[in-house]
Amino acid sequence: MNDLTLEIAQDVPALMRGLGQRARNAAAELAFAAPEAKRRALEAAAEAVMARLADILAANAKDMAFGRDKGLSAAMLDRLMLDADRLKGIVDGLRAVAAQDDPVGAVITEWDRPNGLHIQRVRTPLGVVGVIYESRPNVTADAGALCLKSGNAVILRGGSESFHSSGVLVDCLRAGLAAAGLPEDAVQLVPTRDRAAVRELLTMTEFVDVIVPRGGKGLVGLVQTEARVPVFAHLEGICHVYIDRACDPAMALKVVLNAKTRRTGICGAAECLLIHRDVVDTIGQGVVRALIDAGVEVRGDAALQALPGVVPAQDDDWGREYLDMIIAARVVEDIDAAIAHIRRYGSSHTESILTEDDAAAARFFQRLDSAILMRNASTQFADGGEFGMGGEIGIATGKMHARGPVGAEQLTSFKYLVTGNGTTRP
Amino acid sequence: MNDLTLEIAQDVPALMRGLGQRARNAAAELAFAAPEAKRRALEAAAEAVMARLADILAANAKDMAFGRDKGLSAAMLDRLMLDADRLKGIVDGLRAVAAQDDPVGAVITEWDRPNGLHIQRVRTPLGVVGVIYESRPNVTADAGALCLKSGNAVILRGGSESFHSSGVLVDCLRAGLAAAGLPEDAVQLVPTRDRAAVRELLTMTEFVDVIVPRGGKGLVGLVQTEARVPVFAHLEGICHVYIDRACDPAMALKVVLNAKTRRTGICGAAECLLIHRDVVDTIGQGVVRALIDAGVEVRGDAALQALPGVVPAQDDDWGREYLDMIIAARVVEDIDAAIAHIRRYGSSHTESILTEDDAAAARFFQRLDSAILMRNASTQFADGGEFGMGGEIGIATGKMHARGPVGAEQLTSFKYLVTGNGTTRP
Repeated sequence: MNDLTLEIAQDVPALMRGLGQRARNAAAELAFAAPEAKRRALEAAAEAVMARLADILAANAKDMAFGRDKGLSAAMLDRLMLDADRLKGIVDGLRAVAAQDDPVGAVITEWDRPNGLHIQRVRTPLGVVGVIYESRPNVTADAGALCLKSGNAVILRGGSESFHSSGVLVDCLRAGLAAAGLPEDAVQLVPTRDRAAVRELLTMTEFVDVIVPRGGKGLVGLVQTEARVPVFAHLEGICHVYIDRACDPAMALKVVLNAKTRRTGICGAAECLLIHRDVVDTIGQGVVRALIDAGVEVRGDAALQALPGVVPAQDDDWGREYLDMIIAARVVEDIDAAIAHIRRYGSSHTESILTEDDAAAARFFQRLDSAILMRNASTQFADGGEFGMGGEIGIATGKMHARGPVGAEQLTSFKYLVTGNGTTRP
Repeated sequence: MNDLTLEIAQDVPALMRGLGQRARNAAAELAFAAPEAKRRALEAAAEAVMARLADILAANAKDMAFGRDKGLSAAMLDRLMLDADRLKGIVDGLRAVAAQDDPVGAVITEWDRPNGLHIQRVRTPLGVVGVIYESRPNVTADAGALCLKSGNAVILRGGSESFHSSGVLVDCLRAGLAAAGLPEDAVQLVPTRDRAAVRELLTMTEFVDVIVPRGGKGLVGLVQTEARVPVFAHLEGICHVYIDRACDPAMALKVVLNAKTRRTGICGAAECLLIHRDVVDTIGQGVVRALIDAGVEVRGDAALQALPGVVPAQDDDWGREYLDMIIAARVVEDIDAAIAHIRRYGSSHTESILTEDDAAAARFFQRLDSAILMRNASTQFADGGEFGMGGEIGIATGKMHARGPVGAEQLTSFKYLVTGNGTTRP
């Protein structure tokens, strides 16, 4: 831990301001980099990752040892761990982002005015993005790549557990930038594990344009109280699945099981099942039995406790994010009661209605205002890659600027370009 | 001033939370109001203004008397004053917003995924908008109408000077809502002149989704330090006009004069003129002379002080918003020097290049990142009405969410609607 002691001895505010100034300078240059140069940088970064597989695995072994010493849970260690397969995923991700259309300069809309002015609204980068995340080193590559694609400089502040792995991945991204003649400082990793760095990042309004926090409740709380820089809020994923009266039983079974059990630790996993009272004894019963058979603990309301294996739900089971093989389940009178439950307990992340009734689906889509509303699909699709964005920097649950999976496009703003012919205003 | 004393005696935080809760409830209902109902509400509001012309003028007379007692400047009193002509402008504005396309529910983009999922991104209201503004009562009508159109509830906090005028205008908007069967509390005016109300509005994150501040440096500063609610920043309009080498002399004369003198008190008025060195003795001289002849004080750099009537510019004339018959003027080596000057001293509001050279215009458009960049057009067009938005709630100089003139569309967020056929994630 010698290097950690050294790091803490540094002047963190000065260190962070230095990073901020370098990011600001790099952003000014990257903002009008040619799309081809950014594409080359991302491909060169992918090649660098391939070339440095052994270094990355060695760095990751150091991080894993540190994590074990620190007593990280098995789930946390799994998130931290890199192997050949996961590195291939990182390389594929970099190449997918490279191949995407460049959002910068794209004309979002344009129109003519009666006085002859032609107005275009075109995409422009945000500037400098700060990303604060926890243990997963692949976020380093995803966030770096998406910021680069969208012409933004990025300051990455990964969890202390992934410090070495992220360091080598950032080296690869910077090597890619250098190979394409772009400023390396467009991607920087905070070079200290000192927590004071997070506070600086959250308050450096002159150097950072937006913060993307990815992490648990502790991080989100810190960000909400401390941030002076705008934030793409990423709250919990308290995702609901509602089985409507007019629902196909086989589909319900398949989708609910997938939504809950495919992976329980992601924010798109279903946490609460709502069942229309008319189908409790038919579809509902079958789905609950299948969940229990699959090893899920079903915490049901009074109406469901008659079913074998159902555990009584407590008040605090509504609106709870388990991230585990547990689901809350409740019977509702009708679709409006389902909507009311979701409005009260949801986190505006993702909800799915299972129904063959178009009017019910339309009502669900119109009256709820989560970032993602689904019909006859698993909530586990709440993901930038699954949306076709080639990755995501996070899933925004707020409504300002970005919402849902945040890909390169949502890391841009826009400006108006107005062309006249000597046009003056009367 | 008896009513003022009474107001101050109230419990302002409780009063504001009451407003917030009513706005939140109204917003939930307004969010899925039929487009036709919102249109009817706006037309009924326009009719109510017509029917209550005498009341509005009487209320405005009270405000004018209060303003005179308070010693407001002639310019401030002019902004506060309503007459038949200005009221006609307000009525026309309400009707123009009524006639616009409804942004809510509009499909921004949609696509299919290889697994059969169909994804739509559709517009949804932001929720509750807080507008803090100064003396102009027409902002009451514009802001109220644009929020209503975009399905948002609004809490209006006008300047104390326009208290009575704004009160009657809000009554008209609420009458329109009632006539259309929509919740009246979708438009509320803060019913006290107590300044503590502003602080509450800026920090009620549970009830307010975004603040739009319109006003001078004092208000902007307060908002920047106090706001916990997201803000559409509206900084100064330090607008530049750059006369390029390849510029038509007659056009330069016409556009610069319009940009500076048409109205000096609006944020789109030009405040600084940059002239390419190659055309100083030709176009530059003519433009400077015309400005001086029009009564403008030209504060020039050393290279311009040889011209008759030019006043020497001081260091603090660069980057200054005069809002008056004054312009700073400087000779630049080339377009890159003009760009560098604007980057250093501009406020990212609006800049115009006057040139016949397409490459120069492209460089100006690409390398600058103001909300609005113009070619061969007057900066005075920086206005939501002139952009065809049927009004504006403000001009945003930040880059998060909204930018440039903020009309109904930019008062929306979006949500994703995903349709499958029992689709599960592998």
